[in-house]
Amino acid sequence: MTDTHMPKNVQIVLASRPHGEPTSENFRTETTAMPVPGDGEVLLRTVFLSLDPYMRGRLSDAKSYVPPFEVDAPLTAGSVCEVIESRSDDFAAGDIVLGFTGWSTYAVAPAKTLRKLDPQGVPLSTALGVLGMPGFTAYAGLAEIGHPKEGETVVVAAATGPVGSMVGQLAQRAGARAVGIAGGPEKCAYLNEIGFDVAIDHRSPTFVADLKAATPGGIDVYFENVGGAVWDAVLPRLNDFARVPVCGVIAHYNDTEAPTGPDRMPALMGSILRKRIRIQGFIQSDFASHLGDFHRTIGPLVADGTIKYREDVVQGLESAPTAFIGMLTGSNFGKLVVQVGDAPA
Amino acid sequence: MTDTHMPKNVQIVLASRPHGEPTSENFRTETTAMPVPGDGEVLLRTVFLSLDPYMRGRLSDAKSYVPPFEVDAPLTAGSVCEVIESRSDDFAAGDIVLGFTGWSTYAVAPAKTLRKLDPQGVPLSTALGVLGMPGFTAYAGLAEIGHPKEGETVVVAAATGPVGSMVGQLAQRAGARAVGIAGGPEKCAYLNEIGFDVAIDHRSPTFVADLKAATPGGIDVYFENVGGAVWDAVLPRLNDFARVPVCGVIAHYNDTEAPTGPDRMPALMGSILRKRIRIQGFIQSDFASHLGDFHRTIGPLVADGTIKYREDVVQGLESAPTAFIGMLTGSNFGKLVVQVGDAPA
Repeated sequence: MTDTHMPKNVQIVLASRPHGEPTSENFRTETTAMPVPGDGEVLLRTVFLSLDPYMRGRLSDAKSYVPPFEVDAPLTAGSVCEVIESRSDDFAAGDIVLGFTGWSTYAVAPAKTLRKLDPQGVPLSTALGVLGMPGFTAYAGLAEIGHPKEGETVVVAAATGPVGSMVGQLAQRAGARAVGIAGGPEKCAYLNEIGFDVAIDHRSPTFVADLKAATPGGIDVYFENVGGAVWDAVLPRLNDFARVPVCGVIAHYNDTEAPTGPDRMPALMGSILRKRIRIQGFIQSDFASHLGDFHRTIGPLVADGTIKYREDVVQGLESAPTAFIGMLTGSNFGKLVVQVGDAPA
Repeated sequence: MTDTHMPKNVQIVLASRPHGEPTSENFRTETTAMPVPGDGEVLLRTVFLSLDPYMRGRLSDAKSYVPPFEVDAPLTAGSVCEVIESRSDDFAAGDIVLGFTGWSTYAVAPAKTLRKLDPQGVPLSTALGVLGMPGFTAYAGLAEIGHPKEGETVVVAAATGPVGSMVGQLAQRAGARAVGIAGGPEKCAYLNEIGFDVAIDHRSPTFVADLKAATPGGIDVYFENVGGAVWDAVLPRLNDFARVPVCGVIAHYNDTEAPTGPDRMPALMGSILRKRIRIQGFIQSDFASHLGDFHRTIGPLVADGTIKYREDVVQGLESAPTAFIGMLTGSNFGKLVVQVGDAPA
């Protein structure tokens, strides 16, 4: 038996840190030997890999809530995998699990980092989106910080994405109006289709006026996941006692330096004071104790079609870098997932 | 009987709106006829007048949580007054009341806007400071937003002022370390005297390093009442999950335009996200339902000397404009009060 018949692992590593917008040169594909599970570990075959905006931060060498990726080391991500070989009593070959593994075709992971998925009811990929980290981000940020009330107006950008679309739908379930912001008419049409009260195109030259027209009574909750020009347009429209859960500022992830002035920070602090605004950053894992509630209440609503979602599935691990780079400028349409391997029958 | 024997009312009106730092030309003293109370009103003689930083906002013609003062109309303020004549069953001549009247020697006010003060136990002027609006601002902001916990570090600027000194003392009562920032060695000495864990002089050339040394474990609560260079030094030292109640940004009240760049607003939003900071503006009146608790719990602690406070009492209504202008740059030392008339025996 020669080496060429042995299965190999393909992985994508961080070749170099991007300065500004990442390019394909920052990523490198490597073929390595199959990893071998130790005691308490399992060997996994990657089916779906999750690409999410927060990963941009990890490409840089800056302190944040998750440590940076290491240069020349494999990139990691949430993933849905099939168990190939188990050295843990908790899993058996053929099980489907949610893990946090590598941008790789195979991976070894400690059993305790995995959660078994029930392949019934909803597609497996939803564990990375509407019923995964992004969906829970929306759920936790609204429940713990946003507190939308009957008759209030909730605004969210990147609204066709897995966080934004959940924010809008949960806001409506709380009796609020949902105003969704997205890039381009196709995405706006989708927002109308899934029931947002208003959809606004941030690429339109009339964006600021459109937002004003869509929020005649001002904005009570702005779920911040983009920053940039959207935040600039939202800030003057915030009502007294507005709440701004901050879970992302994707418009700034590729910034290499602070924008030119004037310095608007003092004016922001003045607005926060005068309007008694609450701005609060959060990471979904801060609210992990609510994860059970999320699955119990939202799971059935996704399964029965009440809560809508959209996925943008790209094929093949080799597509991951380009898809990731595009996501940072909004080229995906829905939750971006890479299909790395065939889903089990 | 000639007109010259009739008592007259002296009042200070807004002569013109300041552009930047107010000057004495923005104020004008007028002598008018004595006001006459109608049914349900009382005639008041002003004893103490409260000067507070928030009034700077009202000198400008900008939308805020209180409407602007009108040009050529009397300025208003919190005041401690003696009832001279009552046309209400709720008050009698000789009563001492807390009101919201004018920068004037006499005033007429509806009885329902007044609260009778008990002249026993604590000096009357405390109703404008440690046991009044500023003290309650500290109490409410800490209780509702700051939530200082055992072992945490709480930082407050303008710490010899009526808000700051209460913030520090309440933080310590909650088991936190209190770091007070003030301008000049004399004020810092006072902070040490009343028991702040550390006092830092923001005028010192080593201020940024001093703040760092005083907060080796970072900052958990920053009670924001100044903005400017203090906020700039505090922001990078905020811990994960820090809380920033915002009740004032006095450093910016005289700003005529946004400072030159770079624009630090995106970086602030990024910090809020990464560190999961909560920044929330508030006005003490938003929490008026807690006022009873405040008086019940804090009143006795002030009366028995447990909670310390300091007042800067200037004499004579005519001193009010200069005292007010100076307060905006920190020339007062303690709660600024104008003694307009003799306190009743």
